Amino acid sequence: MANNVTNRFHQSLTRNALRSYLAEFMSTFFYVLAVVGSGMSARKLMPDATLNPATLVVVAIANAFALSSVLYTAWDISGGHVNPAITFAMAIGGHVSVPTALFYWVAQLIASVMACLVLRVILVGMHVPTYTIAEEMTGFGASVLEGFLTFVLVYTVYAARDPRRGPLSATGPVVIGLMAGANVLAAGPFSGGSMNPACAFGSAAIGGSFRNQAVYWVGPLLGAAVAGLLYDNVVFPVTATTGVSDGLTV
Amino acid sequence: MANNVTNRFHQSLTRNALRSYLAEFMSTFFYVLAVVGSGMSARKLMPDATLNPATLVVVAIANAFALSSVLYTAWDISGGHVNPAITFAMAIGGHVSVPTALFYWVAQLIASVMACLVLRVILVGMHVPTYTIAEEMTGFGASVLEGFLTFVLVYTVYAARDPRRGPLSATGPVVIGLMAGANVLAAGPFSGGSMNPACAFGSAAIGGSFRNQAVYWVGPLLGAAVAGLLYDNVVFPVTATTGVSDGLTV
Amino acid sequence: MANNVTNRFHQSLTRNALRSYLAEFMSTFFYVLAVVGSGMSARKLMPDATLNPATLVVVAIANAFALSSVLYTAWDISGGHVNPAITFAMAIGGHVSVPTALFYWVAQLIASVMACLVLRVILVGMHVPTYTIAEEMTGFGASVLEGFLTFVLVYTVYAARDPRRGPLSATGPVVIGLMAGANVLAAGPFSGGSMNPACAFGSAAIGGSFRNQAVYWVGPLLGAAVAGLLYDNVVFPVTATTGVSDGLTV
Amino acid sequence: MANNVTNRFHQSLTRNALRSYLAEFMSTFFYVLAVVGSGMSARKLMPDATLNPATLVVVAIANAFALSSVLYTAWDISGGHVNPAITFAMAIGGHVSVPTALFYWVAQLIASVMACLVLRVILVGMHVPTYTIAEEMTGFGASVLEGFLTFVLVYTVYAARDPRRGPLSATGPVVIGLMAGANVLAAGPFSGGSMNPACAFGSAAIGGSFRNQAVYWVGPLLGAAVAGLLYDNVVFPVTATTGVSDGLTV
Repeated sequence: MANNVTNRFHQSLTRNALRSYLAEFMSTFFYVLAVVGSGMSARKLMPDATLNPATLVVVAIANAFALSSVLYTAWDISGGHVNPAITFAMAIGGHVSVPTALFYWVAQLIASVMACLVLRVILVGMHVPTYTIAEEMTGFGASVLEGFLTFVLVYTVYAARDPRRGPLSATGPVVIGLMAGANVLAAGPFSGGSMNPACAFGSAAIGGSFRNQAVYWVGPLLGAAVAGLLYDNVVFPVTATTGVSDGLTV
Repeated sequence: MANNVTNRFHQSLTRNALRSYLAEFMSTFFYVLAVVGSGMSARKLMPDATLNPATLVVVAIANAFALSSVLYTAWDISGGHVNPAITFAMAIGGHVSVPTALFYWVAQLIASVMACLVLRVILVGMHVPTYTIAEEMTGFGASVLEGFLTFVLVYTVYAARDPRRGPLSATGPVVIGLMAGANVLAAGPFSGGSMNPACAFGSAAIGGSFRNQAVYWVGPLLGAAVAGLLYDNVVFPVTATTGVSDGLTV
Repeated sequence: MANNVTNRFHQSLTRNALRSYLAEFMSTFFYVLAVVGSGMSARKLMPDATLNPATLVVVAIANAFALSSVLYTAWDISGGHVNPAITFAMAIGGHVSVPTALFYWVAQLIASVMACLVLRVILVGMHVPTYTIAEEMTGFGASVLEGFLTFVLVYTVYAARDPRRGPLSATGPVVIGLMAGANVLAAGPFSGGSMNPACAFGSAAIGGSFRNQAVYWVGPLLGAAVAGLLYDNVVFPVTATTGVSDGLTV
Repeated sequence: MANNVTNRFHQSLTRNALRSYLAEFMSTFFYVLAVVGSGMSARKLMPDATLNPATLVVVAIANAFALSSVLYTAWDISGGHVNPAITFAMAIGGHVSVPTALFYWVAQLIASVMACLVLRVILVGMHVPTYTIAEEMTGFGASVLEGFLTFVLVYTVYAARDPRRGPLSATGPVVIGLMAGANVLAAGPFSGGSMNPACAFGSAAIGGSFRNQAVYWVGPLLGAAVAGLLYDNVVFPVTATTGVSDGLTV
């Protein structure tokens, strides 16, 4: 048993494993740079206004485009998580070992903090924005909302990584990014549409306010875990053959 | 004959069939969450204004991105309908059996109602928006418009699911979503650009107003049926070989 | 000789050829419906204002999304022209015969007129917008601009239809649409960014003003022809092997 | 040694090499036409206002869409650089020879100048915009920011050109374009989000102001070189097998 644990840790420190952590670090860094950067960019252009439809589009498109791209670059190296909630779901489902998942988390959180730090240092005088919750919502409601959105995201990730997708697998990273963008458009003015605890953590650490931080961890982690288990065990289990409409459609 | 009907019902209740209904439920839930959510999000940001170009972009992009993504996730399981009009066209064309189509409808309608209910409960105080028709238009005109748009959508779905597409099939779900987004940009201020009776039904059920509901069923169902029959029997029948320009281009 | 011409006309009236004309008709109809519809939609939302950045985004995204999608649906049937300028370039380059090209033109022009007519009839009271030229520009300048943009578009079409593209061919229709959208963003406030004589003709016929119509034909047809000849004969001739950097990159 | 240099120059002047330079010229011309054109278009619509969120979306989407498309068209011919910083990274990494890289640079710079010249001549009275730096930022800070963004871009290019990507390679050019668009959204109001020295050079040459030109060369070239070396030697070296999570995911 102890031997087993030691083995797993050794596997987590091979050269390939280290490359995976680096790939997660790079992709998460790029993602947070674009997402938090676009938030600062929108705020710079509309300093006295709160969020409006045009700035929501700025942030949502940045999210969709950046996520598509960074998942693509990490896809064949680390699996393209870029998000502690996704890593959590993968660990729960047994797709990555617990030690590996921990190293992924560390890489993602450090990357996010460093991306926010870079933005803070370069864009002198600009405040790093943290995710905020609409006045009429409770923290519980916001966490439930973020949980639902992360559920959607992780379900899409599982579908996109499914090797049974055939030719569709070419567009996997892109559709995950598109889903994230749509979710930001739906939830932006209410809970911010983070769906990514690393992003929330980094902006909070550099922005200097950990208020409501739990909101962006509890809901997403739960939503992610449920989505992964549901996909693997009910919607498309390994033993499943094709669906009812396959071969019937056009 | 009775035996045949029983058989078909049995086929509709196999494990694979049940997985298909679940996949339809999940994808429709995700789609309605993003589309109706983005409508509420736009309204939250512009409470006193009617639709403007920026909010139209918010809703249209959410539609395009979410539809691309949810079709992708359901593509190999249920065939990726996510829309009673598409299921109707598939049943008319003989691609799914009538009992299966009925179960698809049930799954889609329940998913839509539940997505709107979730939004209503989480986003306390926000009204779930229903599709509305521009003042100068009649309900008949709006239904014709929605019918044309659904015709376009279903024609695109048939093209994307055609196994003769070869390498292009990788981008099938994405182009369907893009077409839906373009249609919303064209019809948003006139009839809302629903093209999906489930979406209209869910928002009406939770929003509390079934006014004009028929508009979003009659036109789309007719348009969908015509599109499917046209594609299957005239534009690209099973017996057709390639087109006139194939092999001639570059 | 006469025999040859007769033969070619017969080839243009086979069942497959007729399906191609129908596919061109459908795709052009869908494209014009979305593009002109989005222009009317933008005008409805901002009746007293001229074009502004948000309405430009509405029109450009509708163009990009719709073109990607309609090219996809017609790709394997008619070759996916949807544009008399592209058909012209294909005929000049010998990829389609002259009679076929003429039937394509007829299908495209009728489709465009009918799409505008449908919009006019359904959206009662709304004027069908025609392409206009910025005050400070001459018609000649606008035609040169449209010619450059159509050159870009047709060059991209030739690249996307090149069978030597390998796996990239899966995204061919999408990148053509994206290029069209980018061009509309660049030229919208100056010459409208039509790049498609059929679209200009249809909106002029129903909008009731053929003013500057030549602008949207002369430049685009010339630009298209030059682009096709350049691609076929200089940039990537049939005899060419791969480029200097192939096999050298990563 | 001298012989070797002569050989390399000869290789840079073969027919295939010349086609590559032409492909770089065309794609860079198209890209700059769309990007600088969209900047002029936005300025035309908002002459008295500085950048606002809607015009940022105009420029960012034009960048994303155009880059995806022009990389696609040049991908199999010249390798699809369209950017002196990418060519620089490829030369540093040994993927193109130094003479070839020099010819690429010449083609890219001439293309950019000509595209800006065309815009200046056609759009009479409009000023060609040059990249500007936000008041509160230093030139050094802007160059660091541009360097980071170019790092992200070039890292994505290396990932997309990696032949080990398998089916994902179909979407390579698209995800590079999306990343560029996200970066423009993040950096637009601060340093302009050029990431491309050719684009900055062309607009400066025709706009008539080389102020801060070094900002758009030093940072991007350094960032590009580091990204290429990092990807090739550390993240995904040629000797590397698959990552830790491959075969473990769903």
